[in-house]
Amino acid sequence: MQPVYMDHASATPVRKEALEAMLPYFDRKFANPSTVYDLGTDVLKDIEEHREKVAGLIGASPTEIIFTSSGAEANNYAVKGIPLAHKKKGNHVIISRIEHHSVLNAARFLERFDYEVTYLPVDEYGRVDPDRLERAIRPETVLVSIMHGNNEIGTLQPLSELAAVCKSKGVLFHSDAVATAGLIPVDVSRLEVDLLSLSAAQLRGPKGVGALYVRGNTRVMPLIHGGIQERGRRAGTENVPGIIGFGTAAELASKELRKNMDTVSTLRNELKAGLQDSISCIQFTGHPEQRLPGHLSLCIEAIEGESIIFMLSKKGIYVNTGSACASKALKTSPVLTALSIKPEIAHGSVVFTLNETNSRQDVEYAIGTLPPIVNKLRSYSPLWQEKVQAES
Amino acid sequence: MQPVYMDHASATPVRKEALEAMLPYFDRKFANPSTVYDLGTDVLKDIEEHREKVAGLIGASPTEIIFTSSGAEANNYAVKGIPLAHKKKGNHVIISRIEHHSVLNAARFLERFDYEVTYLPVDEYGRVDPDRLERAIRPETVLVSIMHGNNEIGTLQPLSELAAVCKSKGVLFHSDAVATAGLIPVDVSRLEVDLLSLSAAQLRGPKGVGALYVRGNTRVMPLIHGGIQERGRRAGTENVPGIIGFGTAAELASKELRKNMDTVSTLRNELKAGLQDSISCIQFTGHPEQRLPGHLSLCIEAIEGESIIFMLSKKGIYVNTGSACASKALKTSPVLTALSIKPEIAHGSVVFTLNETNSRQDVEYAIGTLPPIVNKLRSYSPLWQEKVQAES
Repeated sequence: MQPVYMDHASATPVRKEALEAMLPYFDRKFANPSTVYDLGTDVLKDIEEHREKVAGLIGASPTEIIFTSSGAEANNYAVKGIPLAHKKKGNHVIISRIEHHSVLNAARFLERFDYEVTYLPVDEYGRVDPDRLERAIRPETVLVSIMHGNNEIGTLQPLSELAAVCKSKGVLFHSDAVATAGLIPVDVSRLEVDLLSLSAAQLRGPKGVGALYVRGNTRVMPLIHGGIQERGRRAGTENVPGIIGFGTAAELASKELRKNMDTVSTLRNELKAGLQDSISCIQFTGHPEQRLPGHLSLCIEAIEGESIIFMLSKKGIYVNTGSACASKALKTSPVLTALSIKPEIAHGSVVFTLNETNSRQDVEYAIGTLPPIVNKLRSYSPLWQEKVQAES
Repeated sequence: MQPVYMDHASATPVRKEALEAMLPYFDRKFANPSTVYDLGTDVLKDIEEHREKVAGLIGASPTEIIFTSSGAEANNYAVKGIPLAHKKKGNHVIISRIEHHSVLNAARFLERFDYEVTYLPVDEYGRVDPDRLERAIRPETVLVSIMHGNNEIGTLQPLSELAAVCKSKGVLFHSDAVATAGLIPVDVSRLEVDLLSLSAAQLRGPKGVGALYVRGNTRVMPLIHGGIQERGRRAGTENVPGIIGFGTAAELASKELRKNMDTVSTLRNELKAGLQDSISCIQFTGHPEQRLPGHLSLCIEAIEGESIIFMLSKKGIYVNTGSACASKALKTSPVLTALSIKPEIAHGSVVFTLNETNSRQDVEYAIGTLPPIVNKLRSYSPLWQEKVQAES
């Protein structure tokens, strides 16, 4: 049987249309877009066409899109570039405790250079309270960065409300929308965010390309200085095939958004119901409704997430435990810790991220495969034996 | 007739072998290399295999190679990352006046943050004098960054001597080898450089991927903070297809190096002789011998480089005037200015960069095509008319 891949938050295969669109740009339309001759200016025109498609996905103007090499670069660009460009206003930055490592560690970098960072707590579902944000803002606050959707627990933030707080206080607001753009509606004109990070790889485009949306004339210090590419805001020869793939995938994601949301949330709900019925002592994490449509995250008591993932992979099912960037690095997920989930439960974290290429058969196979694995692992687990004995 | 492309310093088409090696990684071997399951660990293994190939090109150990998204990112990483990681030692940085924009503007960024930068002059051929470098080094110097080869004038620096000066003074030495790696021998063990920037696109690999070589345990502050990728030194999901393409192209470039150097230097010498014979008042720029083998740069008096390039492109010949990153931004090349070439001569700059895919026919066609273009443009040039009248 074909692998049942349910780890789309970690990586997606590039969709056929995007790959086909990219191919000519490797060896035929290869010229440097900064050159003055037609081979180069033709490529530049194609880049601009695809910039429009990426802008269209989030309701931005094309001049507000800066292509980067990843969502992580876009996050670093925003979280370092805004404070550096607005030093005169102050040295205070606010992020949430469950940000992606690229936001979190960019903020920690700022702390080494006389910036102060407030790490906002989240509720049991992983949501930031807009009132709490309002109270944290000071006159010297230069940036608030709160992610749109969390890839580990699926929770969506009340982004409009958070953005409104920032707007009323005159503070720039960045949101990491890597996990959401292309999967749910993201409209910068409605959301009133000032900066937004995107990644092609999350919406079935290629790895190696992302974007930072920067509203209007907002000043931001470049992360990569050099030539005139991206209107002087990000140096280095453009990753042309990557940009073409990103634009193509973004346009298709935009068109198919509603249909895909229906498809994947139905599959996700079936998966949830099936696992809830067949596994005891299971705790679903993140917000029950305000969440990514294809995202199901849970903790299975008394066993290790990594063992579950390993055994599922032997049966051809690919899922994750926490975020891919951290999965080899950390024992207890900082996101689950921020949700006040006890370590012994957090260790059993399993994350399913479905997309529209998954089928009902995939879900049924997962529902049939996971419970016997859980039973087997629990039969070896001293923690589980203790629990059973205590309750009997 | 096929276009005669002689602007390989701006961009190269991806070679067949590299593109073929990349293709499976878009939609089949697509898993995230940071995941714990086999789909991901297999990809990680392939990345490491190709890291070895890139390391092999420059005589480095694979652990000393950090993949980036471009040569410009590698240059920014080194020029910002070394001073930030060695703040305690001092705040002085030395670069040459003819560095790539990504080095130059990264250094200017440092100046905004209490760093002092010395811009070393170059001789008429664009070479930095090692004695002059030695005199510029101070106790508080934390980094010297001098490029290996200049893409606008083709000149190679006396890199071993410059590196030896730095070593004797205990100062870290970075070199931008984007224009040279894969085109001439670059061996970090022999050269004794501490950091070296590379780009895949210069050696017929894909755009969107570069690398920074960092010797041993040299401390350098990451430019992109976040997850554990690249051993914690460069966050963001790896551009897997890009890395595979880079490794494949680097290995082939290494194998074919000597043969290609012979081929392209012969072609370049023929081109030079042909143009010298048929165009009056022409000045070749850069060092006559210590230069990139396929590189021919010249200034044609009394006419504009851009007009020449435009008219050549109408005849299917693609060349450049100065560096591609700057070509739309600047009127007079700062590199030619640093060589003390008068502006009225520098304006007529034309740069041919040949590679091994060029043929003798290409060269003959260029020799036949350029002189009549020069004559035509000069017939419209008031500067040329003045000169002719003054001499008659």
